[in-house]
Amino acid sequence: MITRLSELFVRTLREDPADAEVPSHRWLVRAGYVRRVAPGIYSWLPLGLRVLHKVEQIVREEMDAIGAQEVRFPALLPREPYEATNRWTEYGPNLLRLTDRKGADMLLGPTHEEMFTLMVKDLYSSYKDLPLSLYQIQTKYRDEARPRAGLLRGREFVMKDSYSFDIDEAGLQASYDRHREAYQRIFDRLGLEYVIVSATSGAMGGSASEEFLAVAEIGEDTFVRSAGGYAANVEAVKRPLAPQQDATSVPAAHVEDTPDTPTIETLVALSNERYPRADRAWKAADTLKNVLFMLKHADGTRTPLAVGLPGDREVDAKRLEAAVEPAEVEPFGDADFDQYPQLVKGYIGPGAALGLDADGNGIRYLTDPDVVHGTRWITGANEAGRHVYDLVYGRDFASDGVLDVAEIREGDPAPDGSGPLALARGIEMGHIFQLGRKYADALGLKVLDPNGKLVTVTMGSYGVGVSRAVAAVAESTCDDKGLAWPRNVAPFDVHIVATGKDEAALTFANRLAHELDEAGVSVLLDDRKASPGVKFADAELLGMPTSVVVGRTLADGVVEVRDRASGAKEELGVDVVANHVVALVKG
Amino acid sequence: MITRLSELFVRTLREDPADAEVPSHRWLVRAGYVRRVAPGIYSWLPLGLRVLHKVEQIVREEMDAIGAQEVRFPALLPREPYEATNRWTEYGPNLLRLTDRKGADMLLGPTHEEMFTLMVKDLYSSYKDLPLSLYQIQTKYRDEARPRAGLLRGREFVMKDSYSFDIDEAGLQASYDRHREAYQRIFDRLGLEYVIVSATSGAMGGSASEEFLAVAEIGEDTFVRSAGGYAANVEAVKRPLAPQQDATSVPAAHVEDTPDTPTIETLVALSNERYPRADRAWKAADTLKNVLFMLKHADGTRTPLAVGLPGDREVDAKRLEAAVEPAEVEPFGDADFDQYPQLVKGYIGPGAALGLDADGNGIRYLTDPDVVHGTRWITGANEAGRHVYDLVYGRDFASDGVLDVAEIREGDPAPDGSGPLALARGIEMGHIFQLGRKYADALGLKVLDPNGKLVTVTMGSYGVGVSRAVAAVAESTCDDKGLAWPRNVAPFDVHIVATGKDEAALTFANRLAHELDEAGVSVLLDDRKASPGVKFADAELLGMPTSVVVGRTLADGVVEVRDRASGAKEELGVDVVANHVVALVKG
Repeated sequence: MITRLSELFVRTLREDPADAEVPSHRWLVRAGYVRRVAPGIYSWLPLGLRVLHKVEQIVREEMDAIGAQEVRFPALLPREPYEATNRWTEYGPNLLRLTDRKGADMLLGPTHEEMFTLMVKDLYSSYKDLPLSLYQIQTKYRDEARPRAGLLRGREFVMKDSYSFDIDEAGLQASYDRHREAYQRIFDRLGLEYVIVSATSGAMGGSASEEFLAVAEIGEDTFVRSAGGYAANVEAVKRPLAPQQDATSVPAAHVEDTPDTPTIETLVALSNERYPRADRAWKAADTLKNVLFMLKHADGTRTPLAVGLPGDREVDAKRLEAAVEPAEVEPFGDADFDQYPQLVKGYIGPGAALGLDADGNGIRYLTDPDVVHGTRWITGANEAGRHVYDLVYGRDFASDGVLDVAEIREGDPAPDGSGPLALARGIEMGHIFQLGRKYADALGLKVLDPNGKLVTVTMGSYGVGVSRAVAAVAESTCDDKGLAWPRNVAPFDVHIVATGKDEAALTFANRLAHELDEAGVSVLLDDRKASPGVKFADAELLGMPTSVVVGRTLADGVVEVRDRASGAKEELGVDVVANHVVALVKG
Repeated sequence: MITRLSELFVRTLREDPADAEVPSHRWLVRAGYVRRVAPGIYSWLPLGLRVLHKVEQIVREEMDAIGAQEVRFPALLPREPYEATNRWTEYGPNLLRLTDRKGADMLLGPTHEEMFTLMVKDLYSSYKDLPLSLYQIQTKYRDEARPRAGLLRGREFVMKDSYSFDIDEAGLQASYDRHREAYQRIFDRLGLEYVIVSATSGAMGGSASEEFLAVAEIGEDTFVRSAGGYAANVEAVKRPLAPQQDATSVPAAHVEDTPDTPTIETLVALSNERYPRADRAWKAADTLKNVLFMLKHADGTRTPLAVGLPGDREVDAKRLEAAVEPAEVEPFGDADFDQYPQLVKGYIGPGAALGLDADGNGIRYLTDPDVVHGTRWITGANEAGRHVYDLVYGRDFASDGVLDVAEIREGDPAPDGSGPLALARGIEMGHIFQLGRKYADALGLKVLDPNGKLVTVTMGSYGVGVSRAVAAVAESTCDDKGLAWPRNVAPFDVHIVATGKDEAALTFANRLAHELDEAGVSVLLDDRKASPGVKFADAELLGMPTSVVVGRTLADGVVEVRDRASGAKEELGVDVVANHVVALVKG
């Protein structure tokens, strides 16, 4: 079928949409692929839907290839299964909830572990039925606090989610590996540059998970990698405990006046001037900064949390969020300070103020992996204008445990010793989880094993952001002129631009379009009455991988073939152009 | 790809599901095509999803063939556009509403007129852009009061909805006709016996609409047709006004005692005995029955309605509901009688009690088309135990208007004079509407006409119940053994049943499966270790159009080919069976 631009439901825009923060969003809207309906909610216009369908088909083929079976669950779901796993509550405000006309609580599915578990429980009862992998390509809902970047973080989106069911760990590992390989093939076919990183499992639960991140500056995920092959989402980096120190020669702790030291920098300068240490100068890393937060729990209660970390590091908000999930992090405000009069703002230290929740002051105090036995610190003295010096962990104070939420820095050592870490950003395209028995336990999914004993099934869960992939591919391929689709997902293989007022151009363009169509090449034909400049600009904006310009040079028996990605142009004889294009497309 | 029953995610059930009211529901669940998740909400298992995909593809092809362009709108929609057309309110409890984390009101789309109208308004501005037809195949939501019959009336369902945009009535008519023809092709390809009937437009609004009904005893829609070609949903039948009568010789109205006449029958008998009329005996059709209802309006208020109709007819609840939409009909209860003391239960008549809402008694009184000038009635006297005789419409009483909500009866004359009506039942598979300018007016969709003047666009809206079609096809083809799919929508072309313990059967079955697969025939292979009886029963239950039994006769060089629909069996040589089956499938 030939699609004529004069009839295609599309309007290109000359201006960026006001809310466009990232290039893919800007171009997908300007090129008429999608339109925003509400925050984080988009409509797919014909061009966009063609890309979405192509991505869906690639995902479907690779899932079928590993023997996963396609099903489709509803999006509107009953509350009870999500109650059984506690996710009804744990999802917090991210879950879209509603009540039906009979007063039943329902939700719009953010992911379907519960439903698949129940379905398998309904149908299967024996180890002989396993292994089993099921998948769906389906619309999902999450009421994101900050929907952004167009399709990249939406509230309604298309996801491929699959679930594996195995009798034992070895089976789960095999199912997980098959999915991992299928995902590699999917993202390879989409032409994405991606990394596979260790990840946290969050509300999903389970033991191990990895993310597939499309490398992109505008990505929301920060990840690290080392030359030696370590790769992890920053949330999943587990910094090892620092080596313990011998503190026998450290002087006894002493409280000192530290006037006019509003920053770590001024505190270090004053310390070196007035209270120098014998062996070397004080550094920012010798100060112990205690940062307060409030954790809001699913049941609505709030508890304080103090994090102690070296003064040269900041708390990484996303690492902290991931670490305390499902609780949410809130700032520790003035009203909270009022509740805890032992806290002297700016001079908070362990001991009297923190880490004593056993005897009831109620502030849980967790410290960075660098805060270990024998380490020597300058920290707040819980008195205005004063700090305590030579406070040694294990000798003079202790914390309630370790919390590794400091920002990861370029050059930090990889936890596995594989060299210094480099930081980069990526878009989460896929996430694979070894769930284990969390859901099967909660919902009672057991099967008979070969010995006739009931055993709980072990599960994996695997997701691909299908609509997000459309944006990620756009993001990774677009340039300053617009979209530039790889062949695998382009809405059309070829864009034919007929220019000039001469009927001959349109006639030849039509003939070429038919010839290509018959050869199985999908054609977008610009047959509009518009200037060549407008048409060329639109061809670049819309981004088909190949375009053929039929116009001025037709009288000389040649047309121009343009490659969108490289910008290369080539003149070809009218008698050979069709075969040339077919060869390009069919690869 | 060959699918092995030993691996397919399916379990057939020996028992009917408890909630199965209709055959298609029973078989789709028992054969493992779908499973219920909540009332009116279903999951599609692999077999069911394959049928759904095939139906979707037929619909898509026929929509593409008339030049409609596929798009996809979200299901989660903002309130405002539906507020602008008043449907936010009019839909009442059928609309699933929710509030997002920021407190914004949202809904799950029951149909998308508003959204398409706004999208076209956003993109297009000139008559040159029209005509335009857009469609989507998408998940819709309606919070049905009585979800029933499995997929036939669900709360989450798949629908193809399309919308046409034209500059004038002639354009709308052409778009409407194109859709009408496409729908005929769709339902032909689905193999459904269907009728096209005039219909009411309901909450959708607009001037004219027709429904495509699959003829089925279990259908929820009752329709009528005449030998002369008239066809209408009963809700849409417009009975003409009866001819006016000359009442000059009718005696003056007189009130009489009518003790012990609790029914129309007893009233007629007593009337003929005590108060006979001169020309002929009284009949039930001479009595005027006044039935009371309460109408509940979208704003929550309730108003009474009295319907006067001949005593030999009943009010048809669905015709009444359709006539008063968007108001809802509620019974007139004892508390309502208390509010209107002029109503004497069982003896309600016009005059003092009804039809006087101008002077404030507040009961609107509408009468049947048979109640016209000069007609002579026995009706309630608004006194216990008494009726009034020879009450003549136009002489002695009047109503506030005509309301045609009496049941249509077999043999009633067609309104267009094309003969007596026959009644039948059907499943609504499609509904096409000439919306006109209702939505374009409400949402300001105007384009420039050839004279540079802004004109309001005229629209059509067209729906196909895609998931419902799966059930309708199942309903129309199943028998007492299970499903029996037509080739166009069967999940697999062929079901190969390998029987016996002999390895040879399975080996040949595998070889045949591969041969068919390579020829483009989709194969379901029953390779399970189960008895032939179980396998044959499952093959009939699952309903592939053709099955091949490889077993006992293999030693003689023959296999058996079975036709599911007819039950015909044929023995074929092992060397010719593949070609034979390919020919059957490729038709």
